Amino acid sequence: MGGPEVERLIGLFAKLPGLGPRSARRIVLKLLREREARLAPLAAALRAAAETVRSCSVCGNLDSVDPCVICASTAREAKICVVETVADLWALERAHVYRGVYHVLGGSLSALAGRGPEDLAIAPLLARVAASPPAEIILAMPATVDGAATGHYLAEKLKPYNVPVSRLAQGVPMGGALDVLDEGTLATALAARRLA
Amino acid sequence: MGGPEVERLIGLFAKLPGLGPRSARRIVLKLLREREARLAPLAAALRAAAETVRSCSVCGNLDSVDPCVICASTAREAKICVVETVADLWALERAHVYRGVYHVLGGSLSALAGRGPEDLAIAPLLARVAASPPAEIILAMPATVDGAATGHYLAEKLKPYNVPVSRLAQGVPMGGALDVLDEGTLATALAARRLA
Repeated sequence: MGGPEVERLIGLFAKLPGLGPRSARRIVLKLLREREARLAPLAAALRAAAETVRSCSVCGNLDSVDPCVICASTAREAKICVVETVADLWALERAHVYRGVYHVLGGSLSALAGRGPEDLAIAPLLARVAASPPAEIILAMPATVDGAATGHYLAEKLKPYNVPVSRLAQGVPMGGALDVLDEGTLATALAARRLA
Repeated sequence: MGGPEVERLIGLFAKLPGLGPRSARRIVLKLLREREARLAPLAAALRAAAETVRSCSVCGNLDSVDPCVICASTAREAKICVVETVADLWALERAHVYRGVYHVLGGSLSALAGRGPEDLAIAPLLARVAASPPAEIILAMPATVDGAATGHYLAEKLKPYNVPVSRLAQGVPMGGALDVLDEGTLATALAARRLA
């Protein structure tokens, strides 16, 4: 439909996360109908991003400057928050609750996926901590089996550096009705209960 | 987050149909992580589509050739199926149930949106029918108030040309359980009932 160029464009959009052939078709039709307003700017923005955006050589964040804006800031506290992905880093930044810097591992340890310590940015983290010990290291791993394993591994590896290492609290999420929560969350929240 | 280029890219994706800031962020992160495999091909495909894809001067379909592949085909029957949008045309083609050609109106008449006959490709349709009368004209309008109004208007306008004009049947959709259908569909299906 629409010739090979359109088919190819739909195919590429359909493989993006959250999209499929149907939504890709809708998007491509919209882009082709509003060529000047949408298609041309999107093509230009993609090229600009491809040319300028790089991984920060300090923390692994994505930015058009290196070191990234966060690493280069003088207003940040000397804490390192360790995250799996850039998406996690951005989520924490959007929450406006953390004023330290970050370290992006690039994933979690996974026996199933065959990802070992050498596949993650763990050595750079240790080098960073050795070169300039932070006041605290916060392990902000996801509450998954792999995330927990990665957290334990990192806590072990970080022990010799004599820096306080903490983890995110686990429990009932904000607005979480108890009757829709899974048993794992309820068990964790109950075990970690605090005096009111 | 990620610098102005990334912000701009996320903003453009977020305005595409079916996407929002959250899904746009996911897509952009994926694109930036897999630059060679995804970002570069998508940017190239967008440029290629912008350069080659045009509206068919006969029927209004989108294709990289003009007249489009459907209009240029010699295997198509001399029937014209009138649709609102290119998306509708593609939907009919995917169903593989129609072997005629098409005419894309570009929308429906709408008093509310201030769209009159001169805003749609109605004059080109009449000219097309006058120049080479088809065996049949099928009005494949959506089953909406505007769609029905557009169908009535077209049927009136097409009367002088002495060509059989038909409409799509309305009724219970395939796999449609009666108890989840709206009253309008049930009323139409009952009124248009046929002997078993």
